[in-house]
Parts: sequence; C-alpha cells; structure tokens
Amino acid sequence: MEKQRIVLALGGNALGTNLHEQMLAVRSTAAAIADLIEAGHEVVIAHGNGPQVGMITLALEAAGKIEAKTPYIPMSVCVAMSQGYIGYDLQNALREELKNRGIPKPVATIITQTVVDGNDPAFQNPSKPIGAFYTEDEAKEMAIRGYTMKEDAGRGYRRVVPSPKPIDIVEKDTVDALLKAGQVPIAVGGGGIPVRQVAGNRLKGTSAVVDKDFAAAKLAESIEADALIILTAVEKVAIHFGKPDEQWLDRLDSKAAEAYIKSGHFAPGSMLPKVEAALEFVTSGPNRRALITMLDKAKEGIQGKTGTTIVP
Amino acid sequence: MEKQRIVLALGGNALGTNLHEQMLAVRSTAAAIADLIEAGHEVVIAHGNGPQVGMITLALEAAGKIEAKTPYIPMSVCVAMSQGYIGYDLQNALREELKNRGIPKPVATIITQTVVDGNDPAFQNPSKPIGAFYTEDEAKEMAIRGYTMKEDAGRGYRRVVPSPKPIDIVEKDTVDALLKAGQVPIAVGGGGIPVRQVAGNRLKGTSAVVDKDFAAAKLAESIEADALIILTAVEKVAIHFGKPDEQWLDRLDSKAAEAYIKSGHFAPGSMLPKVEAALEFVTSGPNRRALITMLDKAKEGIQGKTGTTIVP
Repeated sequence: MEKQRIVLALGGNALGTNLHEQMLAVRSTAAAIADLIEAGHEVVIAHGNGPQVGMITLALEAAGKIEAKTPYIPMSVCVAMSQGYIGYDLQNALREELKNRGIPKPVATIITQTVVDGNDPAFQNPSKPIGAFYTEDEAKEMAIRGYTMKEDAGRGYRRVVPSPKPIDIVEKDTVDALLKAGQVPIAVGGGGIPVRQVAGNRLKGTSAVVDKDFAAAKLAESIEADALIILTAVEKVAIHFGKPDEQWLDRLDSKAAEAYIKSGHFAPGSMLPKVEAALEFVTSGPNRRALITMLDKAKEGIQGKTGTTIVP
Repeated sequence: MEKQRIVLALGGNALGTNLHEQMLAVRSTAAAIADLIEAGHEVVIAHGNGPQVGMITLALEAAGKIEAKTPYIPMSVCVAMSQGYIGYDLQNALREELKNRGIPKPVATIITQTVVDGNDPAFQNPSKPIGAFYTEDEAKEMAIRGYTMKEDAGRGYRRVVPSPKPIDIVEKDTVDALLKAGQVPIAVGGGGIPVRQVAGNRLKGTSAVVDKDFAAAKLAESIEADALIILTAVEKVAIHFGKPDEQWLDRLDSKAAEAYIKSGHFAPGSMLPKVEAALEFVTSGPNRRALITMLDKAKEGIQGKTGTTIVP
C-alpha cells in the first residue's frame, strides 16, 4: 500500500469526558495514530469536543452568574477555547509517542474556522444538545436569556444549538502546507469554529456547533485527501443493528448506503451522520474512499483488512 | 530595505481587556501588522494573555465552587484555552485586513508549548500576579487550596505564579514551515503553554506563566529571525523616564543597556523585561536586532525611522 493522505476524525470516546480521562485517553489514541504515521501516511487529525465545549460553556455561564467580571462568551469562542484545550493534550501526547518511535515529526494544532451558510435550515431548527441538564424552571430562565431549550428524553432540559453543514474550511491551506512539510496538523477541532461570511471579507462567529464528521469530510475534500477515516465505538457499520439479523458490512457503495439510510438502518446522532459524512467525501471527487471503524483497527482498516469501506 | 523575518510581540493593550474590546482592538492591530506584511516582510505574531487568562482561570474557579461538574483546570490548560480565544479573533481580523488589501495570505494560530526548566529559581519565588483581587480571608482560603497569594500594593491579594525563563519553543518547526510557505503564523500566545521535560520524551504542563516578550525572543532566536519587535505603549525607550531629564533613546547597544539596567532606569514588570528580552535576542546570534516601539510606529520603526533599536 502506497503512502496516502488521510484525515482521521476522532470521536469523543477517544478523548475522555474530563481533563483526567483526556490525559489518559490521548496516550492510547496517540499510539494508534502513530501506527498510521509510521506506516508512511500523511495524517491530519480532526476531533470532536462535545463534553469539553459543554464543560467550558457551563463553567463560563456558572461563573457569569456569580462573578460580574466574567463576560458573556459566545459559543464560537467556546469552541475556539476547546480547540486549545484538547489540541494541547493531543499534540503533546502524539509528539511524545512519535519521538519514542524515533519519528521526530512536529505535531501542531491549528485554530480552525469552518464557514457555514447563514441560511442553512439548521438555524431555524436548533437540534444539537450541548452541556448539562436543567430543570424546567431553570430552562425557562435560560430561554429568557435567549437560549433554545429542549426536553431531552425525560432526563431534563438541555440547551440545543443549530448544527449547520460546513461549506468551507478557512485554514485549509495551512493544513495543506504542514502536510507538505512532513508535519502532523490537528485541525477542525469540534467541527471548527462556526463562522458566517458577512459584509465583504468579514467572517463572524455564529452560535452553532458543526458536526465534526462533516467538518472532517469537508477538510478531506478541500485538501484532496485519499481517505477519510471516521472512528467510532464499533469495528464496522451494521444494518439491522442490535437485531437478530444484524449484518456487519465490509464495503458500502453510495447507492446501497442511500437505500439503507432511507430504510432507517442508521441511528440519527450516531451512525447516520458518520455514513452521511463518508458519502459527502467519497462523492466529492475521484479516487476517494472513506473508512468507518474503531481506533485500534484504523491501521488494519486502511489496509482493507477490516472496518467498513465506503466507496462512490 | 530588503525582506526581513520578523517576530512581533503584541502587548495586552493591543488586545483589549475583554471580549468586546478585543474584537475592536484586533482590527486596528491587524491594520498595523498588515502594513509590515504588505512591505514584504515575513511576520510571526506573538502576544500576551494577562487579562484573558485571568478571566478564564477566574471563571473556571468560580464555576468550580458552585458546580461540581467543573473540574479543576491547571494553569497550563488555561493558557492553552487563551491561545484559542485570542488567536481566533486575531487570525480572523488579520485575514480580513489582508484580503481587503488583495493579499490572500493564510493566517493561523499554532497552539504552542514553551519548555521551561523545573529548576528555574522562579519556581521558588512566584512573582507574576494573575486574575482578580481577593480579600485577606479569601486569600487564606485559596492558600489552603495550594495557591500562592501575595498582597498587591494595598489593592488586595492576588494569586501569583512563577514566571520561569523559556528554554525552547516546542512548535518552532511548525512556525518555520508556515513562514516558508508564505503564511502568517500566530504563536507562543501568552508566552506559550509552560511545560517541563520529565521522564524520557514527556512534556508535562506546569503551573506558571512565561513572560511573552522572553518567549517571543526565544522563538525569534529559534527560527533565526532578523528582527524582534516588542510593542509597548510608548514610541521609544527612555532613561530617567517621567523625570525632568527624561531622554528618549534611538539606539541602545547591549553594553549601555546593561549599565542602564543596573542603574534602575527600567521599571520591573514594565520596560525592564522588554529591554532584557531584546538583549537576549540580539546577543543570541549574528545580525540580529530588536526594536521597541508602539504598534502604529512598527512599520516606520523597522525602516529605522523611529522606536528604539537594540543592537549587540
């Protein structure tokens, strides 16, 4: 297998749900990523930020209540902060792992903005829950402050934000330059900082969270990657998931994928966006493939030995 | 004047003290930086983070008191978050300014770690105040939690942290690669995330804040810059500052600078570290010069028309 340019999208489970878990999780994550780099591939790392941006927004909100010196911090800025928070740990751990293997490649996090369309229908229907659970009374109070609150499966109320589709990755040329220099960039953390094009050349932060798999797919398309690897908790994609006739898939073409999506085989908020993001990428240009598998299987997966490969 | 490789160190006054001020401040800052880029120079931007990292630590501490879901976040991670917070605004504003001038150069923030020596005497004598003021009782309580608290000029108690000297910039090769690719990196924000070399190749975050001018000087040395520009609130360095015999300096060599430092001409925590950082850089290799001036004068200053130029 020749050298490939790969965008690797890490899920929240690769990062832990708090700082201590994150510091441990990034070590095993780093080992699996280093396997791909050691095999000669060019690798860009994208990652989620659900628990982390939840913690940051919650903390800043809580602090704002009791401490007048804490200003209101918009969602976009919280995403920027989460990129620093996660990227630091991840680049540190991967640098160490690569050095231990005698591969002194620089690893660095790029603060990344993702352009979304202000007319994206997602802005009319905020759907992505973030942060903690609130009581009905707390939720009412937060709604007065301008937040959209939704009841979440009997567990309480949560803030929901729009999750628009990415249309461009602002710092794509920076990612490309670092790959060409033989380095390992970490980019579009948490789906990237969501920004809208406003007057002229101005980009303005917007209160939204871009799905990290769609952002990784857009980045992969922008830098003409050969492969997009979307990591998840299972080795392969299944149809009839969790049922007696469950069937694990080795290969999935876009036609079959569309049919399975229509039949409701993939859970919204779980496998569905991963399959959709994979399709976005593989249909965006020639010779592009996507792989959905778990972290430990990424190296074998890219060799075609396991995982579910998605092709046009 | 031929093209030069320049590290530009922005002070807190170029960034404002809160998010709203920052969004306005970065626009005029961006215009002055764009002047240097338009003149053909390679520019890396370093910046401080005093008010910002103060706000972040304060908010996370306040949230931790009332909200069990907010974990304790070490100083190093707060610096990482502040790099995302500031870098996002700065790269966004500079990208826009450059585009408006027809210079579509990519601008991107690199999350940057600064290596310090665990045996640096600064760790025995924490001296850099960060964050808010506390009463004596609050200070006592915080001291129990492990913080070093110091009375600050009759204004109350503040947390002080060690400010060790930088010995290496971990992501220097990333900054260099981006400059070579014609891009504009933002790096060592807030002096960089302070880390110590521990066992093997491991770098561990440490509870400190590296002076941003020293970090910028170390970065300039590491990437073999031609010039280090340290921005401040005055156009030139003065001796007998604020006195009847005040004298503004156009040029300062290392011998004269050392003598003025000994005579106490430069205020600690203000002009002193800037002059010291400038000296560190100009004596680190051949053909290196530093310039201390204010933001609006940077372009004229690098042409030798104003500011104080420091030479070996």
